[in-house]
Amino acid sequence: MGKKKIGIIGATGYTGSELVRILVNHPEVEIALITSESRAGEKFSDIHTSFRGIVDIVLQPASQVEKTDLDLVFLALPHGVSMDFVKKYHQKPFKIVDLSGDFRLDSPEVYHEWYQKEHVYHEGFDSAVFGLPELNRENIKQSELVANPGCFPTTAILGLAPLLSEGLVESRGIIVDSKTGVTGAGVKPKEVTHFPNVNDNFKAYGLKKHRHTIEIQDTLNKLSSEEVSLQFTPHLLPVDRGILSTIYARPVKELTTADLNALYLRYYEGHPFVRITPEAPSIKDVRASNYCNIFITFDERTGNIIVLSAIDNLVKGAAGQAIQNMNLMLGLDETTGLKQVPVNP
Amino acid sequence: MGKKKIGIIGATGYTGSELVRILVNHPEVEIALITSESRAGEKFSDIHTSFRGIVDIVLQPASQVEKTDLDLVFLALPHGVSMDFVKKYHQKPFKIVDLSGDFRLDSPEVYHEWYQKEHVYHEGFDSAVFGLPELNRENIKQSELVANPGCFPTTAILGLAPLLSEGLVESRGIIVDSKTGVTGAGVKPKEVTHFPNVNDNFKAYGLKKHRHTIEIQDTLNKLSSEEVSLQFTPHLLPVDRGILSTIYARPVKELTTADLNALYLRYYEGHPFVRITPEAPSIKDVRASNYCNIFITFDERTGNIIVLSAIDNLVKGAAGQAIQNMNLMLGLDETTGLKQVPVNP
Amino acid sequence: MGKKKIGIIGATGYTGSELVRILVNHPEVEIALITSESRAGEKFSDIHTSFRGIVDIVLQPASQVEKTDLDLVFLALPHGVSMDFVKKYHQKPFKIVDLSGDFRLDSPEVYHEWYQKEHVYHEGFDSAVFGLPELNRENIKQSELVANPGCFPTTAILGLAPLLSEGLVESRGIIVDSKTGVTGAGVKPKEVTHFPNVNDNFKAYGLKKHRHTIEIQDTLNKLSSEEVSLQFTPHLLPVDRGILSTIYARPVKELTTADLNALYLRYYEGHPFVRITPEAPSIKDVRASNYCNIFITFDERTGNIIVLSAIDNLVKGAAGQAIQNMNLMLGLDETTGLKQVPVNP
Amino acid sequence: MGKKKIGIIGATGYTGSELVRILVNHPEVEIALITSESRAGEKFSDIHTSFRGIVDIVLQPASQVEKTDLDLVFLALPHGVSMDFVKKYHQKPFKIVDLSGDFRLDSPEVYHEWYQKEHVYHEGFDSAVFGLPELNRENIKQSELVANPGCFPTTAILGLAPLLSEGLVESRGIIVDSKTGVTGAGVKPKEVTHFPNVNDNFKAYGLKKHRHTIEIQDTLNKLSSEEVSLQFTPHLLPVDRGILSTIYARPVKELTTADLNALYLRYYEGHPFVRITPEAPSIKDVRASNYCNIFITFDERTGNIIVLSAIDNLVKGAAGQAIQNMNLMLGLDETTGLKQVPVNP
Repeated sequence: MGKKKIGIIGATGYTGSELVRILVNHPEVEIALITSESRAGEKFSDIHTSFRGIVDIVLQPASQVEKTDLDLVFLALPHGVSMDFVKKYHQKPFKIVDLSGDFRLDSPEVYHEWYQKEHVYHEGFDSAVFGLPELNRENIKQSELVANPGCFPTTAILGLAPLLSEGLVESRGIIVDSKTGVTGAGVKPKEVTHFPNVNDNFKAYGLKKHRHTIEIQDTLNKLSSEEVSLQFTPHLLPVDRGILSTIYARPVKELTTADLNALYLRYYEGHPFVRITPEAPSIKDVRASNYCNIFITFDERTGNIIVLSAIDNLVKGAAGQAIQNMNLMLGLDETTGLKQVPVNP
Repeated sequence: MGKKKIGIIGATGYTGSELVRILVNHPEVEIALITSESRAGEKFSDIHTSFRGIVDIVLQPASQVEKTDLDLVFLALPHGVSMDFVKKYHQKPFKIVDLSGDFRLDSPEVYHEWYQKEHVYHEGFDSAVFGLPELNRENIKQSELVANPGCFPTTAILGLAPLLSEGLVESRGIIVDSKTGVTGAGVKPKEVTHFPNVNDNFKAYGLKKHRHTIEIQDTLNKLSSEEVSLQFTPHLLPVDRGILSTIYARPVKELTTADLNALYLRYYEGHPFVRITPEAPSIKDVRASNYCNIFITFDERTGNIIVLSAIDNLVKGAAGQAIQNMNLMLGLDETTGLKQVPVNP
Repeated sequence: MGKKKIGIIGATGYTGSELVRILVNHPEVEIALITSESRAGEKFSDIHTSFRGIVDIVLQPASQVEKTDLDLVFLALPHGVSMDFVKKYHQKPFKIVDLSGDFRLDSPEVYHEWYQKEHVYHEGFDSAVFGLPELNRENIKQSELVANPGCFPTTAILGLAPLLSEGLVESRGIIVDSKTGVTGAGVKPKEVTHFPNVNDNFKAYGLKKHRHTIEIQDTLNKLSSEEVSLQFTPHLLPVDRGILSTIYARPVKELTTADLNALYLRYYEGHPFVRITPEAPSIKDVRASNYCNIFITFDERTGNIIVLSAIDNLVKGAAGQAIQNMNLMLGLDETTGLKQVPVNP
Repeated sequence: MGKKKIGIIGATGYTGSELVRILVNHPEVEIALITSESRAGEKFSDIHTSFRGIVDIVLQPASQVEKTDLDLVFLALPHGVSMDFVKKYHQKPFKIVDLSGDFRLDSPEVYHEWYQKEHVYHEGFDSAVFGLPELNRENIKQSELVANPGCFPTTAILGLAPLLSEGLVESRGIIVDSKTGVTGAGVKPKEVTHFPNVNDNFKAYGLKKHRHTIEIQDTLNKLSSEEVSLQFTPHLLPVDRGILSTIYARPVKELTTADLNALYLRYYEGHPFVRITPEAPSIKDVRASNYCNIFITFDERTGNIIVLSAIDNLVKGAAGQAIQNMNLMLGLDETTGLKQVPVNP
């Protein structure tokens, strides 16, 4: 049996190039098509020069998707654009992993409220599976359409899922204070990503209304018996990659740090990409890898639980998780092609 | 009347060099003495080469303090060392600003608990004034011994003082999630400050037990009618200078963002170094200056108050604040020599 | 006699904000006008938020220049735009310091060749003085129009002037390998200044044809009895500010490192902003200050002279040097308002 | 036939961890032993926490080498220490790749002159092969002892080999102006690698006497018919990984940029890790990969050839090249386990 054929729609951004970086050494699939409307006709390596001599495939217009025999397609497109492609491709014989935010929320209405945009494909919400394998592995295996989670939500949900599933913390008053690298803001230069505005600097942004707030809250709500309300504050780090979320919650019963570690180890048993660590993780501990490192502790003085959750936003927060989903959807071992060791330093 | 004569005890660290950087252009004082035990006999500019041709003073042993006619002495020494000097110098005719943590807490007992060290000069606690001019201006003016606040506490206390003074928030459950530049860890190379361990990286440290926790809590307690309990989590940024604290608190009554801004503007009226800003501050907004920028907002969705408080840890968090205290102690205008504009970018 | 009145034309860029940062504490001048076409009507501090409460002046359209009583005007405009303003203002009663490249070269023809643009004001070349005070102090004092040097040329010319003036090196085959911070590329976001393209990265650019090549070569030619030819290669550092040029030249006669140091000390005697240092300078040794640090050595093994020359590109490479020129043009002491100590770290 | 058994002597440094990072996914070898004197008994992942759950091998004392069945041993030790191990192990049945500088030079005498240290194992020089596969592939295949090249020399030699082999440039007067990331300075914290001394900073070091000078010069001498003399100046970049060398040479006959590119393409044909690129390479173009990117151009105005040569100092400049050598010594395909795509950004 030959390798599975993969298409990547959208080649100019960071998630597109990161998908290619990982897939090129994946033993069970081959990249059959990479598309870009704006750069069609150019070589992939003309845009991403670090791929010279490695991936010199010529970029195609998206119209080539339907002329190519594909098993699975990644949509590496901005939100609001992706939904048009899902609508068009949903009945095609290939499966879809959508890396945008277009099908992650509960309904078109919630989408409209937080993305300030009318959704054009309501039907997609019925079939889309939220692609966090540690929560939804079996559903993902059966799915034709996976909504790949956001980067911040991956840290926050993995960091909180055991506590909320077990009803161990107050579901209101949770704080998620997150810090992200700049690649999360995309490949397109803007004032906020201009080097002198970021270097040797640090600031919060998107206070009170960042779209990932609702993605985190909705997903945790499904795990929790009580209505979840959480405060999410993102900050911009002067680094390329990586998210660290510092999470504060209040237990509803007596717990020790040892109890919490036992719970987390048990909850993530059999999930190879979550590592419960004995030390506070740094973002370099997971850089360029698909791991999520989680540290949990209880402060007896204040009565708070503190969870630290770290990922590489381009890997476990985007392309790596998308490939983890692809592996499940194609019946492959979940870790195939994803065994890269973190690059540290 | 001539200029006041200043001594700086401890020249090799960042607070020492930052004191000199600012004082050299201060119109009302002159640096009469800089001491260093380990580098006595060398020029100040041999150690801090950016001062070549500007400050070529030869470093003296500390024994010169008593042979020099001085109006005020800065102790730029590590905690645990500083107390010996305060004990020795306290009855001398010059005033003292101590930049260490040795006299900031309420008592030798609290010091012992959080610094794991016996305090050798209990009497110092009776006369030491906590040198945060925005809270203690009049006491500082009268004081012979000022304990200059820690860097994290400066952000947290200035960020929370109006709320606690007015009894507007729950005094338990306050979260202070702080992020600091590396100079806060001192001039001496260690594993945690090794470039490849910090660059493009980010992590939390000192969870649950950082010494500044008690300094913040004790100071706020004096402002509050209720017992304060707070969670303080410091993180290490890959930047040289700057602290941003993201503070979460829950109001005890209905409040709007406008109410909060009005309160903060009123509270800090007449305090030229606190700026209540309409935008979330970045640490570069205050870099190399003595300002503290504060942003405050209320989230109606969650019911939380969020305060962002930013300083340069070496200036408002150390040397600049020490000079602000000096100005008050010497009867000068509080802002003399401290009007540097932030260096951004 | 009152303070001199200064206008700044162009407020949104880095040179504009850096001029304001320094001038606001200058004891002999006052900022009477700041203009911006694109942001007129807004406050200066709305654009540069670190100036909140310090410089809240409302920006004016450039048409206000002629309605304001001014002693001197800084043009902080892009090249190609500046020439129009010089043409218009040249006969006005105020003096002009032009920070663009429009009047630095020898003739409109040379300008056209290297800037690929027709020059609209040929007459300006007759009166413009190249504003490097260490070479042209007396001419600057008499000038109505000063062309403020480029950032790279400041390092290269100061680094080579003593050698070429004395005819000590081969005038052909000089190598200037320069490395600059990102602010040199301007305030406007572009692909080359997008944070993930710069951070943890390094590359050369503008090989063989950077416009500063001719500025360096033409200026050195005037000092040299032989025709100068030099190779200039700029590189982009992942830092905000600072240029270090590493310069290689071959002596025409026997020389020692001691000879070279004596020559440089003598050449720059009485020039307070050039420091001949005993150690290889770092860019932080001069950061946020108007100093140029120069280190010179002879390698007996290879027979090469190596010169290292470091400045802050926004200060001695732009705004600081412009103010140094202003001081000379207004009959003030050259160092007035420019005594800031380097900010390190 | 089973996998080859590999030992790594020295586990705490960057080359040790980088060897493990790559070898753990190498399909033809297994790591049978990792030693550390100072940390024996601890897990590899206790020291390098990003390996948690991936490489939890317990570190052994070096004495275990002789008790283990090994095919090849990497010495990831400081120079001056490595020679003792080579002396001891040279007659053992396993092959050796030495990553230190102890056997790279021509003779013990040259070693003594540049390393200021007596060499204890003169015999090693007879059999050691300089491990640059692009020059010495066949010799490496036959060798029992390979001296893995230095990081700077790898860029400089690969950048200059075609020109000197063909006698196309003046062999005297070559300039190699190199810029390196901080990991080149090792894992041990020192003043020069203290974060605030490197971040937002840049400086030259080791002027005139860096040990890699002689390694570059000696190797090029073997390719050249004329005696080579070159000036090598390293600089320290505020980045983790990567070296860019900017090389200047003067042609002895007429050449075009097209001629030079054709020459380089021909010279490196069949060498999969050297990429001759149409654009000036950035160090991120090769980060975390085994590639060396080379750009070459001729400047008609000045008559200089400029070569830009970029590697990751920890991969092609150390561990990756060592594994490339291992592949050749063990009869494997040269690229086995080394196909990682550069991590950019």
